[in-house]
Amino acid sequence: MIRMGLLGAGRIGRIHGHNVAAHPRAELVAVADAVAQAAEALAAETNARVASIDAIVGDPNIDAVLICTPTDMHADLIEAAAKAGKAVFCEKPVDLGSDRIRTCLSVVAKAGTPLMIGFNRRFDPNFASVKRRVAAGEAGNVELVTVISRDPGPPPVEYVKRSGGLFRDMMIHDLDMARFLLDEEPVEVHAVGSSLVDPAIGQAGDVDTAAVLLKTASGKIAQISNSRRATYGYDQRIEVHGSKGMIRAGNVHTTTVEVANGAGFQADPVQNFFLERYAAAYREELAAFLEALATGASPSPSGEDGLRAQILADAATESAQTGKAVRL
Amino acid sequence: MIRMGLLGAGRIGRIHGHNVAAHPRAELVAVADAVAQAAEALAAETNARVASIDAIVGDPNIDAVLICTPTDMHADLIEAAAKAGKAVFCEKPVDLGSDRIRTCLSVVAKAGTPLMIGFNRRFDPNFASVKRRVAAGEAGNVELVTVISRDPGPPPVEYVKRSGGLFRDMMIHDLDMARFLLDEEPVEVHAVGSSLVDPAIGQAGDVDTAAVLLKTASGKIAQISNSRRATYGYDQRIEVHGSKGMIRAGNVHTTTVEVANGAGFQADPVQNFFLERYAAAYREELAAFLEALATGASPSPSGEDGLRAQILADAATESAQTGKAVRL
Amino acid sequence: MIRMGLLGAGRIGRIHGHNVAAHPRAELVAVADAVAQAAEALAAETNARVASIDAIVGDPNIDAVLICTPTDMHADLIEAAAKAGKAVFCEKPVDLGSDRIRTCLSVVAKAGTPLMIGFNRRFDPNFASVKRRVAAGEAGNVELVTVISRDPGPPPVEYVKRSGGLFRDMMIHDLDMARFLLDEEPVEVHAVGSSLVDPAIGQAGDVDTAAVLLKTASGKIAQISNSRRATYGYDQRIEVHGSKGMIRAGNVHTTTVEVANGAGFQADPVQNFFLERYAAAYREELAAFLEALATGASPSPSGEDGLRAQILADAATESAQTGKAVRL
Amino acid sequence: MIRMGLLGAGRIGRIHGHNVAAHPRAELVAVADAVAQAAEALAAETNARVASIDAIVGDPNIDAVLICTPTDMHADLIEAAAKAGKAVFCEKPVDLGSDRIRTCLSVVAKAGTPLMIGFNRRFDPNFASVKRRVAAGEAGNVELVTVISRDPGPPPVEYVKRSGGLFRDMMIHDLDMARFLLDEEPVEVHAVGSSLVDPAIGQAGDVDTAAVLLKTASGKIAQISNSRRATYGYDQRIEVHGSKGMIRAGNVHTTTVEVANGAGFQADPVQNFFLERYAAAYREELAAFLEALATGASPSPSGEDGLRAQILADAATESAQTGKAVRL
Repeated sequence: MIRMGLLGAGRIGRIHGHNVAAHPRAELVAVADAVAQAAEALAAETNARVASIDAIVGDPNIDAVLICTPTDMHADLIEAAAKAGKAVFCEKPVDLGSDRIRTCLSVVAKAGTPLMIGFNRRFDPNFASVKRRVAAGEAGNVELVTVISRDPGPPPVEYVKRSGGLFRDMMIHDLDMARFLLDEEPVEVHAVGSSLVDPAIGQAGDVDTAAVLLKTASGKIAQISNSRRATYGYDQRIEVHGSKGMIRAGNVHTTTVEVANGAGFQADPVQNFFLERYAAAYREELAAFLEALATGASPSPSGEDGLRAQILADAATESAQTGKAVRL
Repeated sequence: MIRMGLLGAGRIGRIHGHNVAAHPRAELVAVADAVAQAAEALAAETNARVASIDAIVGDPNIDAVLICTPTDMHADLIEAAAKAGKAVFCEKPVDLGSDRIRTCLSVVAKAGTPLMIGFNRRFDPNFASVKRRVAAGEAGNVELVTVISRDPGPPPVEYVKRSGGLFRDMMIHDLDMARFLLDEEPVEVHAVGSSLVDPAIGQAGDVDTAAVLLKTASGKIAQISNSRRATYGYDQRIEVHGSKGMIRAGNVHTTTVEVANGAGFQADPVQNFFLERYAAAYREELAAFLEALATGASPSPSGEDGLRAQILADAATESAQTGKAVRL
Repeated sequence: MIRMGLLGAGRIGRIHGHNVAAHPRAELVAVADAVAQAAEALAAETNARVASIDAIVGDPNIDAVLICTPTDMHADLIEAAAKAGKAVFCEKPVDLGSDRIRTCLSVVAKAGTPLMIGFNRRFDPNFASVKRRVAAGEAGNVELVTVISRDPGPPPVEYVKRSGGLFRDMMIHDLDMARFLLDEEPVEVHAVGSSLVDPAIGQAGDVDTAAVLLKTASGKIAQISNSRRATYGYDQRIEVHGSKGMIRAGNVHTTTVEVANGAGFQADPVQNFFLERYAAAYREELAAFLEALATGASPSPSGEDGLRAQILADAATESAQTGKAVRL
Repeated sequence: MIRMGLLGAGRIGRIHGHNVAAHPRAELVAVADAVAQAAEALAAETNARVASIDAIVGDPNIDAVLICTPTDMHADLIEAAAKAGKAVFCEKPVDLGSDRIRTCLSVVAKAGTPLMIGFNRRFDPNFASVKRRVAAGEAGNVELVTVISRDPGPPPVEYVKRSGGLFRDMMIHDLDMARFLLDEEPVEVHAVGSSLVDPAIGQAGDVDTAAVLLKTASGKIAQISNSRRATYGYDQRIEVHGSKGMIRAGNVHTTTVEVANGAGFQADPVQNFFLERYAAAYREELAAFLEALATGASPSPSGEDGLRAQILADAATESAQTGKAVRL
């Protein structure tokens, strides 16, 4: 039984907290949150206790911590927990600055404790199936990866201002997915971005519509597109084209129902909410973390994966701003 | 908080027990099963206590019982629980004999306690969406209902011998679905059945492949087909054709993945296991029962629904055996 | 080069006439029609001459005739043409009475001339692919055949009155398809029919909504459903379920376009007009007839196929009227 | 009746020649080809005469010419025909050099004769439907256009060497489609390209796998990807994402058949051959040219469209070679 402490009981913290409580190999011992009510509610639901972050990090009876706090606390908490000998699962991103990530990872390396970054989409059963089939050679040599990712609606501008920008906040998931599927590091990054969805996002210096081209040293290509608004739901698709064939995962519709009449055949919108769309992914992600702790394997995606995705997001941000390609 | 006792901790009892334990408005108080280990395991998982059937039925602190025992105990337990003033949720069928069902329902009517029968498919989100849209008039006048239902594989012959036959054991779900979607009672039943999947089923006097035609007094038509074996998963489809259009719910594939190569585009099989396919349906079904108890509404599907489906199953059995249509 | 005469230059005659004219191995020599303008227009378009039916049947330079006249002339013309030594392609049905068909077929048999009946759907590329795969064993043993066939809209009541009724006029195609896919003769027929689409059809003594169950001697089952109205286009689907798997052919949508928005994902209606939906089938059907003439093979579907489908249509008509099953 | 001469009776010339011959408003008068047999065969099939290019261009009884010769003759023939007062339909591209195109277009402008360039995909019924719906505002403001275009297999290297490279030879269709759907000129071009399919293509200095990002002045984005090999057929998809929704056109499968078994649900590959996939597009394209000539409207796509696509192809070629973005 792995004893876990949860730092941060917000929307995503609640998901992880409940998943820990429901997992046969883990126990949720304590929950911390700056908002006492949030911590108390989740603790009550999961038979955990409320504690401060320091108390959790310092508790010798806690084996692992889940970091679900605001982004600007991630790196500090990873370091503190690693120094305290805890295994760490941290929500993405490690930090908005790649230098800070590097420092943080060296602290973790020195501590020798396991660190896993929450790129949950790798664990979505559909995307994981694509990856398994690609790894099994069903697509042959991977040549062209396509990732389409569109949110149902834009976040508040206040969120956008603190987010690090679309490439670091939203596309980072897709950059990780591209790396995951290419299985080779991109060396050339082209990006374009525009504010077409919400002018306030543009006024805040960010974009809400963007596309990226990646090229690896051996010539593999990935293309990613993002929009902060999709009227038909949370649009999440991947496609791998290779020498033997093409493998793709499509969207998840809310039902399998079709209504046919003179206007045509209408299917339901796709699932709208990321917590619903990726519910299984969050469960599988936690299971993978626990499995790594149980077997002593290195958790994946690693801190290095977090760093690489951040470097790509930085490069895409630069390319979109300058109109020039960036070489890594 | 509705306090519930569970009678029967087998495969389906475990589903209901866990759903009760997870529901915010219900509490699983006690679990009974002839196999002590089964009761103990489920009780431990759900923080319930183990008790005998009699103790549960006689416990004044228990508001409702869930009957998940073998079929031949259903009617007796419904009567006992109703007489004890309990609300009752009973797995289908009430009994394999329609006369016994009639007696049982009259006991329940006299007791004046709520009774709901577990035709879970009505609560599948896909099928429930079809029903809602049909009820909202999106198909116009319903004219032609099609239900396709094929199991991944045949049950053991020992099960078949005690099952009452395919029409009462398997197609009863589809007969209920046809009634649900037609919204009018069938008055004419035609059935054909064959043993094509497993000769042992034929030797046991049952069929494994069957189809039925139903016609209502106003002329609406339903067609149902069943097979005890589908190599591609648990095939569950419904379709309603009406004056304004057609509404259908298709199968649920295990993933959204497609693999394309020279052989074509391959999608995954459909979900194979009824507990996976109808996991949401079982949750929604329990929620509907609890909602009815909370509001004082009559639970639906009712005991009368159980009886009507059984009468149709009897008629289909007769028609398939005699090669003649049966009028009701 | 096979020299052909066309009897009947109506809607379906025009299709066949143009297909003959475009076929490299055939030549359309003459066209007959009671309406002189119809014959003249088609003859002009195809570089054929106008002639009377008698002249065509009596012309020693014509090798084969295509009979596309009203149904009540079919049997007489088949006999006349056969006696004149012509190969005959005749639109379905041979006649509305099975006795008349029997007489006609014996005349053809005596003449020893080839006769093919226009069950065009066997030649639809989608349905033909299903048949080829079934014949190749991809479905294993065929157990359950489903045919869904719904017209976009009902014909005029005047047509209905002379049509022989839905089972002989419309479902005969599906009965032939069921025979084609079952590859075994049905021995038990159950049918239900209602007038739900157009009350005038019911007043004329016919039905517009119907379903049929067929069972063969070895226990294979087919179910067919028909409606005279489908708001979403000309609904034509088949499905074969067998021991190894299921093979089906779906509808043909007018485009591959999908429009996604808050209401969902909308695809186009299915092709609405039978001449468009089965354009390729008519070409392939003619090609098969010409191929049979060239090789000396017996054309298929044969006159016997025409008779068998008619017997099933008669049985279905009787079953729907009496509410009883019919054994053959 | 518009009298037409055809220059070039190769694969694509034969398509156009037959389409002219079948069109009620056009007549194919004469066919020229350097290979006498090719011209003779097509002329025989279409009741046209064989003539030299000069004779056709100089024939006062010919209203319009279709140029289907090798690319390096296009510009010269357009100019000659325009000077002779002919309306001109020319296969893409006008020329591999944009300067040569500019000169050619100025000659045409001076002559004042109609010129249409054969970007046939605009006339594909699926893609044309997408365009109509986008133009009708169904997608709202267009923000993100995706074009996926993959050939079944690579051309011979000898062809590649003379082709102008993938961007000018293959992607030019997709660049035109992106302009067509964006309805605004791109001002920024990013491209990456690799030789992953056939090393001989790389040795010849070309790429076989490529992707492009386009950005317009107002910030609209298009992404295009190409591969010279798709094992599952000729992959041709477009998608328009906008403020109100998403509109896409998918691939055309060879049949609607699905085979389901333990391995899943298998659909057929997509149509493999561009002449089959775009057969309707070629007919509609010719019809649009004839309609423009009949009404006096300017044919579209115009010579200017040909130039703009070429400029984008040049920019993409440069970007892929230099690893830098190109601004227009």
